Amino acid sequence: MDNLGVLFLSELVGTAMLVLLGCGVVANVALAKNKGYNGGFLMVNIGWGLAVFAGVVVAYASGAHLNPAVTLGLVANGATEFGNAAAGTTVPVDALSVLTYLGAQLIGAFLGAVVVWLGYKQHFDAEPESATKLGVFSTGPAIRSYGWNLVTEIIGTFVLVFVVIGFGRNGDASGLAALGALPVALLVIGIGASLGGPTGYAINPARDLGPRIAHAVLPISGKGGSDWSYSWVPVVGPIIGGVLAGLAAIPLLPLLG
Amino acid sequence: MDNLGVLFLSELVGTAMLVLLGCGVVANVALAKNKGYNGGFLMVNIGWGLAVFAGVVVAYASGAHLNPAVTLGLVANGATEFGNAAAGTTVPVDALSVLTYLGAQLIGAFLGAVVVWLGYKQHFDAEPESATKLGVFSTGPAIRSYGWNLVTEIIGTFVLVFVVIGFGRNGDASGLAALGALPVALLVIGIGASLGGPTGYAINPARDLGPRIAHAVLPISGKGGSDWSYSWVPVVGPIIGGVLAGLAAIPLLPLLG
Amino acid sequence: MDNLGVLFLSELVGTAMLVLLGCGVVANVALAKNKGYNGGFLMVNIGWGLAVFAGVVVAYASGAHLNPAVTLGLVANGATEFGNAAAGTTVPVDALSVLTYLGAQLIGAFLGAVVVWLGYKQHFDAEPESATKLGVFSTGPAIRSYGWNLVTEIIGTFVLVFVVIGFGRNGDASGLAALGALPVALLVIGIGASLGGPTGYAINPARDLGPRIAHAVLPISGKGGSDWSYSWVPVVGPIIGGVLAGLAAIPLLPLLG
Amino acid sequence: MDNLGVLFLSELVGTAMLVLLGCGVVANVALAKNKGYNGGFLMVNIGWGLAVFAGVVVAYASGAHLNPAVTLGLVANGATEFGNAAAGTTVPVDALSVLTYLGAQLIGAFLGAVVVWLGYKQHFDAEPESATKLGVFSTGPAIRSYGWNLVTEIIGTFVLVFVVIGFGRNGDASGLAALGALPVALLVIGIGASLGGPTGYAINPARDLGPRIAHAVLPISGKGGSDWSYSWVPVVGPIIGGVLAGLAAIPLLPLLG
Repeated sequence: MDNLGVLFLSELVGTAMLVLLGCGVVANVALAKNKGYNGGFLMVNIGWGLAVFAGVVVAYASGAHLNPAVTLGLVANGATEFGNAAAGTTVPVDALSVLTYLGAQLIGAFLGAVVVWLGYKQHFDAEPESATKLGVFSTGPAIRSYGWNLVTEIIGTFVLVFVVIGFGRNGDASGLAALGALPVALLVIGIGASLGGPTGYAINPARDLGPRIAHAVLPISGKGGSDWSYSWVPVVGPIIGGVLAGLAAIPLLPLLG
Repeated sequence: MDNLGVLFLSELVGTAMLVLLGCGVVANVALAKNKGYNGGFLMVNIGWGLAVFAGVVVAYASGAHLNPAVTLGLVANGATEFGNAAAGTTVPVDALSVLTYLGAQLIGAFLGAVVVWLGYKQHFDAEPESATKLGVFSTGPAIRSYGWNLVTEIIGTFVLVFVVIGFGRNGDASGLAALGALPVALLVIGIGASLGGPTGYAINPARDLGPRIAHAVLPISGKGGSDWSYSWVPVVGPIIGGVLAGLAAIPLLPLLG
Repeated sequence: MDNLGVLFLSELVGTAMLVLLGCGVVANVALAKNKGYNGGFLMVNIGWGLAVFAGVVVAYASGAHLNPAVTLGLVANGATEFGNAAAGTTVPVDALSVLTYLGAQLIGAFLGAVVVWLGYKQHFDAEPESATKLGVFSTGPAIRSYGWNLVTEIIGTFVLVFVVIGFGRNGDASGLAALGALPVALLVIGIGASLGGPTGYAINPARDLGPRIAHAVLPISGKGGSDWSYSWVPVVGPIIGGVLAGLAAIPLLPLLG
Repeated sequence: MDNLGVLFLSELVGTAMLVLLGCGVVANVALAKNKGYNGGFLMVNIGWGLAVFAGVVVAYASGAHLNPAVTLGLVANGATEFGNAAAGTTVPVDALSVLTYLGAQLIGAFLGAVVVWLGYKQHFDAEPESATKLGVFSTGPAIRSYGWNLVTEIIGTFVLVFVVIGFGRNGDASGLAALGALPVALLVIGIGASLGGPTGYAINPARDLGPRIAHAVLPISGKGGSDWSYSWVPVVGPIIGGVLAGLAAIPLLPLLG
């Protein structure tokens, strides 16, 4: 397999792992009769953070973007290579490699959501509310207002991509490199707790769109619509936030080490 | 003591520690009059994760499998040595060493559960519900359905073993090695939060069967049956999941570093 | 840009990040209709701790004080240089550099609070209680008593600055240096959980005053007063606590490594 | 100051820090009108764990026992030196150095409890229940039975001291050394969650007795008795558990690395 194939598979498996554990914790907390039912928002935050942790570990070869907003944010920041130099899997940044990452992320997110459905099959059957079922797959706003929801997603993703670039810059010098996948997991817990209230913090177009497609095509008992009218917000908002963070980081690089 | 004896004792003590702290947190949350009563599912997840942390520290010599699904998953992955090269305690993988690990894990889990019962003796006496008492020892499904319960256990254990193999592969390169027992503790917290809703995430045949035997033989006041009809699910499911993860990891090794 | 300019921007961006995520978690937990509504005090503690984590990462160049009590505590401790030697951004400690840090912290905190307001705009509109809105920005006492509130803020900030000096002293030897921004994040979670009950643990004059000014000037719907009569407590208390910690650490340096 | 003087002060300041943050989180969760009131047992566990974290950082010179059960457990394990070789502060283990450690721990715990009282002064005044006030200082059993309470304290302290000895043995090899004060903090969170239900996990004679003396002598409004009839359990139990762990670790050292 050539490097691009490895990177494709790496992003796919990593994003599937991310979505399996991420949407999984929502299923546990939200769907009827689960042992973690009503476990609280902090549990959801921690679950998503550790989902990122596991996803980053298994997507070692590709540098574990797992998120189109990260991929595009790094492009905006001027990245010239994707992959993992230590693993010998780098490829140049060009249209093909970017599309390879984005495609793998979307497909992986779709597949991860399918596995969540299998793991929680009986609880989807036992859950009376169709909106709750959709909420396992994709985010929705607490108060619907496309403009303000977009603002919240832009802010959250800006924080994600800006600090991730900081990890890369000051990782070795500050010791963060020794923590492997832990810093980004902590960051995602923090963003969820702090900025997840209004929209449920998609902050990742693949994480939202892939599972939404899964919701639309899977034979989930008693499901309602997939809320396509909102679906562009958690795609466009994170892309804007990620690209803005990539651009903002350029003049601010001296701050980041 | 020869290496095999050290490994036997290491797995036994480590698994006893794992089950003591793991079943302990369930006792605290579930049994009447405890200070942690009704402490929530996240507290159970964190308790089990830190139980793994402590168990891994004390089972340093054996490489801390503490779980037949890990042992068999590593065999399926093609491991040729068990133990800890840095500690000079390796043995070849063969029928004897595999059985030594599995036997030690089961005995250790049994003994750990006995100590939980001693530590929470009065609270077992004060608890009116027999099902709650069994729940301290062994897992049970939220919605009983052997097939779907098996699927959930397979998925959870697949994630455990697959990511653990990832730790071993990219640990040094990614810095994870510097975190010692922490990554697997975080992983277990994450699996519990994300995939523990339907079955209570045994993801470890010894963790479930050893305490179930303890429940059957201990003179626990007001105990009911040990639910042997379900007992094969948290044994067979994790073994299938662990072996599948070991096999799946072989062609995917380039992703894992 | 000269070093002082880099340090100014570093403290500004870092403190903005700190307050965005810190006041953000309060907004999520306190304002009506949020997904994290009523998420509990531990979630607030963890959110603030991870806010410090993110702020420290992005303020790498300035050594990430992000808090006038830290800056003044280090002065009292006898610091002769601010900044980050590894990044080549050090400046001598003098009136100009101290004022540069304090000014950047205050402005950054103000700006971070403005972004919180934007991110939670609809929830500020939906929240009926004006006191809850102020609580997102600035701390207030559970039982008002300027003297005792001051004591609590002094104790909390003393712990913060004293242990932070300990990180710097024994970091390399104890391995803490390898944890980057994590130790101070854990410390802030601990101080919040343990000493945050009476006053909401400002323990940072900029974190309290900057957002209070933002509350006063922003066109927040249905806002009440900014409680200026209390506003001096979370400024004076932390400064006293930080300076006392810096002074106390001098004779105790042998303890800290 | 000679080494013994440094070690005395180090244990005193470290144990004071431990008890300040540890009893502090109980005050926050238990005393009326606090912002963390009813924050849950997990919050208490995390608060105590991070209290250990801060205490270990500031007691770097003495090796941060902070607990007579650790000191006596290390003696039972055959330690010949106390202190921190890297800091050049070691002393031989003899009656004088042991008493120096124990005395410093008790005095430090007393002083830490006094500061908790000052920090939460108004909330002690506002709290109607005298038993709740005592509970901030010292542990008490959920179900009183000196024998079983003793068993629970022995088990909890055994785990603490046994795993701490494991940290020292396999720390460098396993990478744990790079985590500084973090592993013991995680361990204490785990012990609290898993074994803290019946007695509130003193697992430290100084942590319980020092604050109990403070409770007895401080002019706390509306306080009741200091429950001296139970006070020996959290002293004797942890000493037994710690010594047993130190002895048990000797033949098991090959397991621990």
